[in-house]
Amino acid sequence: MDSCLLLDAGSGGRASQRLVSQCFLRYFANPLLQRLDDAALLADLKGPLAMSTDSYTVTPLFFPGGSIGSLAIHGTVNDVSMLGARPRYLSCGFVLEEGLPMEILERVVADMGAAARNADVLIVTGDTKVVPRGACDKIFINTTGIGEIFATQAPSGHNARPGDAVLVSGAVGDHGLTVMGSREGLSFLTDVASDSAPLNRMIEDVISVAGEVHVLRDPTRGGLATTLNEIAEQSQVGIELDESQVPIHEAVLNGCSFLGLDPLYLANEGKCLCILPENKAEIALEAMRRSPYGREAARIGTVTEGRPQVTLCTRIGGRRLLGMLEGAQLPRIC
Amino acid sequence: MDSCLLLDAGSGGRASQRLVSQCFLRYFANPLLQRLDDAALLADLKGPLAMSTDSYTVTPLFFPGGSIGSLAIHGTVNDVSMLGARPRYLSCGFVLEEGLPMEILERVVADMGAAARNADVLIVTGDTKVVPRGACDKIFINTTGIGEIFATQAPSGHNARPGDAVLVSGAVGDHGLTVMGSREGLSFLTDVASDSAPLNRMIEDVISVAGEVHVLRDPTRGGLATTLNEIAEQSQVGIELDESQVPIHEAVLNGCSFLGLDPLYLANEGKCLCILPENKAEIALEAMRRSPYGREAARIGTVTEGRPQVTLCTRIGGRRLLGMLEGAQLPRIC
Repeated sequence: MDSCLLLDAGSGGRASQRLVSQCFLRYFANPLLQRLDDAALLADLKGPLAMSTDSYTVTPLFFPGGSIGSLAIHGTVNDVSMLGARPRYLSCGFVLEEGLPMEILERVVADMGAAARNADVLIVTGDTKVVPRGACDKIFINTTGIGEIFATQAPSGHNARPGDAVLVSGAVGDHGLTVMGSREGLSFLTDVASDSAPLNRMIEDVISVAGEVHVLRDPTRGGLATTLNEIAEQSQVGIELDESQVPIHEAVLNGCSFLGLDPLYLANEGKCLCILPENKAEIALEAMRRSPYGREAARIGTVTEGRPQVTLCTRIGGRRLLGMLEGAQLPRIC
Repeated sequence: MDSCLLLDAGSGGRASQRLVSQCFLRYFANPLLQRLDDAALLADLKGPLAMSTDSYTVTPLFFPGGSIGSLAIHGTVNDVSMLGARPRYLSCGFVLEEGLPMEILERVVADMGAAARNADVLIVTGDTKVVPRGACDKIFINTTGIGEIFATQAPSGHNARPGDAVLVSGAVGDHGLTVMGSREGLSFLTDVASDSAPLNRMIEDVISVAGEVHVLRDPTRGGLATTLNEIAEQSQVGIELDESQVPIHEAVLNGCSFLGLDPLYLANEGKCLCILPENKAEIALEAMRRSPYGREAARIGTVTEGRPQVTLCTRIGGRRLLGMLEGAQLPRIC
């Protein structure tokens, strides 16, 4: 292969073919992708299905705990899982900048392949565009996922009910602070790493033991506070959040306090919010804690009657409204 | 709405919500999308399914015959159709540049909405990233489509057999030359327009009357010549192409001859190649010609035994090998 990506690798001709066979097929290898028809044939999916899409533009491409490649798999696997579905197949669309070092592309693609195998999903169809230098910044990736819904009633942001318990599968803020730290070269942030992880198996375990799960959402851009506000609006309920119960790593708390950030608004890439009947809370927490990605799971609040808003019960006993993220905390976080 | 897109519209917070409700939901409106959960719930799909993805980076954003918006719908609808499938649902991922005039975004989104309605597909889930000025060029769109395969045997590039007839659904080269012309402001190219169109209904008609269709492919990047070469390789057959039978509009022939381009290598966005048993050729051509997008359908060649290569039988009676596209004819053509 050439050492840098040339424009003709996106032409649809001989050079595109080489890129596909020498890079993508090598790391994504599976019989469905290898057909290389205009579309992939998926013979064994049983409905109802869940479909989700995300474009990834994170910078830098590599950061502690992951890369744009692993993130592009985990993010979409998680979004599909949030509907109570088992993610099965992913598509993958690259927009690449002319002149990109092939070694960088190959590391990203290798990360994607490994993350897909680890999450037990197949990349079955793809597309590559190469744009002239300056028309995009290095690598953008879109992945779209399809999964089979196994939950009897698919969880939805519309289903929270007064009295439900609000759980989070672990500490919040790691991904957002990590990306910010790597971008700005903040040397005091050495103890933080992205939480990027596939949550599909944990979710499956939670639903199979708890049965009735009303809401599952992963608090990515906008963080925990914004996602809870969305749920409150969709379900037309109040949510009371107990600040002292929200798990946050020491290093994240320190970093945020130094930088003037609120960890409740920082992006997460390996956490989920789970809202379900009070009497299922304990068994769901136990299921989360059995997963390597849910060891720090905690109950952090309660759904209430009343206006669709999120109230934070602070450590010192106060109460204040927790709004949605206003403005942009950090672009290109995922 | 603001007159230009601000970074915070990609933050996941309040500004993202406004963009979704005031722009995307307005033009894509359907009950599945309106749920706004992490994934769309598709309850009624019957397998086997076809899945295809494409990223669109075409420049300029608007050109005679279409825009990046209509192209992003037609391209993916067509790729899904090529598996003998009825496209049903699309996802849509935007990467947008900070500062983009909202009026431009709205025109693109309106085009997408209209094209989706016209092709009878629903946009059911989406994602928007806004990147800082200079990190991408205006608008990139990814669409991923899911469809239900209705063909008894899904067509594939691997299924061409010696003796099969090779059909094309209309004139080639229009899209490629149009985009090139609009980009360079070539005023003599006033009579060409992109062929961008949804082929799903025509394909359904062809398959229902012909029954056995071995190969369906849309000759996009790399053009007719490159796609035929791919099929020859995948099926390990020869293909003889009769130059005099390949429909090419007069204006495209003239433009190509002036610019030194070969229309057989120019991208098409509303054409398909159809390879099927000789005795089904006529009935398939009739079906194509019943469609507004297939009026100029023609039989252009024959599949032969022998080495996997494409032979062009020229107008003056000569024979020469027609290779794959080498190098890049034009970046950002789709």
